[in-house]
Amino acid sequence: MYEGAVQELIDELGRLPGIGPKSAQRLAFHILEADPEDMKRLVTSIVTVKERVKFCSICGNVTEEDTCSICRDPRRDPTVICVVEESKDVIAVERTRSFRGRYHVLGGAINPIAGIGPDQLRIRELLNRLSDSQIEEIIIATDPNLEGEATATYLARMLKTIGIAVTRLASGLPVGGDLEYADEITLGRAFEGRRNALS
Amino acid sequence: MYEGAVQELIDELGRLPGIGPKSAQRLAFHILEADPEDMKRLVTSIVTVKERVKFCSICGNVTEEDTCSICRDPRRDPTVICVVEESKDVIAVERTRSFRGRYHVLGGAINPIAGIGPDQLRIRELLNRLSDSQIEEIIIATDPNLEGEATATYLARMLKTIGIAVTRLASGLPVGGDLEYADEITLGRAFEGRRNALS
Repeated sequence: MYEGAVQELIDELGRLPGIGPKSAQRLAFHILEADPEDMKRLVTSIVTVKERVKFCSICGNVTEEDTCSICRDPRRDPTVICVVEESKDVIAVERTRSFRGRYHVLGGAINPIAGIGPDQLRIRELLNRLSDSQIEEIIIATDPNLEGEATATYLARMLKTIGIAVTRLASGLPVGGDLEYADEITLGRAFEGRRNALS
Repeated sequence: MYEGAVQELIDELGRLPGIGPKSAQRLAFHILEADPEDMKRLVTSIVTVKERVKFCSICGNVTEEDTCSICRDPRRDPTVICVVEESKDVIAVERTRSFRGRYHVLGGAINPIAGIGPDQLRIRELLNRLSDSQIEEIIIATDPNLEGEATATYLARMLKTIGIAVTRLASGLPVGGDLEYADEITLGRAFEGRRNALS
C-alpha cells in the first residue's frame, strides 16, 4: 500500500514476534518521524548485539565474553546448577536473590510439534559439566507448562542414573494471588505440596 | 540486569511506542537469536527509510520523491481535497476505493494538552493550495474523537470565509456492528443523520 521504503520497513517490522500489521505500521511511522539520532542509536544497538553478543561456552547464557559474568564469578557456589530454558529465566531467578549457584541454559524446551527434541537442547553440554565432581545438586527450573514439564521429567530421569541430587521448583499458589482465581491444576498442586503450617 | 549490549538494545526497543519492558526483552532476544541476514535487512530498512523517505511538498503525505504518487497522478481529481490527520489515514481512505480526489495531511490534530495548536499543523500549506482556483470541495476526514472534531470545527469555520464547499464524513453505526453495542454518542449521531430509507 505504501511507497517502496516505508512498505519494506512495515514488512520487516511485521516479521518480528508479537508485532502485528497495525503495530508494524505504527512503529514504521514512529521511525519515520523520529529524531535521526534516536534511530541511529537503535540501529547501532541492533548491530552491536549481533556483532558482540554470544553464548557462554559453559552455561549457554548470553555474554559479550567467552564465558558469562556468573560463570566467571568465583563467589558463586559451584556445587549447585539451576537448569533453565532461556537467558530470560536466568534474569528472573537472579532477581529473587535467593540462588547463589550457577546456571545452565538449555535454549528451549522439548516440543515435538515444533521439532525440538533433547538433541536440539544443550543437554549434552549439561552432562559434560557433570563430569566435574564438585556438582552436588541440579535444580530444574523449566517453565511450569507442558513443554517445560516434559523437559523436566526427561532431565530428572536421565540425571537419576548419574547419582546427583535432582530437585524441581515447587508448584503452588502465587504469592499475592487470590485463591478463587487459581486454576484447578495450580490449586491441586498446592494441595499436594502442602506443608506443616508451623514450620 | 543484562550485560551491556543486550541491556542497551532492550532500552532502545523499550523507547518505541507500544513496546513495554516485556516486549522489549522478547524482541531483543529474538534479534539476538535471529538469522544475521534477516537482521541486516531490518537495519537496512530502518536506515533507508530515514535517508530516503520525506514528506510530499504539496500534500504532506510520505514519499520518496519531491511529491507523492497521488499528487503526481494526473488521473486524480484536482477539484476535491480530502483533509486527514496522518499518512496512515490516506491509506485507509485509499483502501475504500471510493475517493478519487487528492489529499492534504495535517500531521496531527489540535490538542491543547499536548501543545499542538493550528500553527503546528499543515494548515497554512492547505490555505496556500486553496489559492489554486480549481479546488471546489474540501472533505474533512479527521478522526471522530475529541481532537479530530476540534480540528474539523476549526477548519470548517476558517474555510467557510473563503467560499469553498466544506463537508465532513458521516457519523453513524459502523457497518457489520450490533446496534445494542453502539455507544450513545454514535447512536445519537446515527439518529441525527438518518436518511430516507428508500433513497
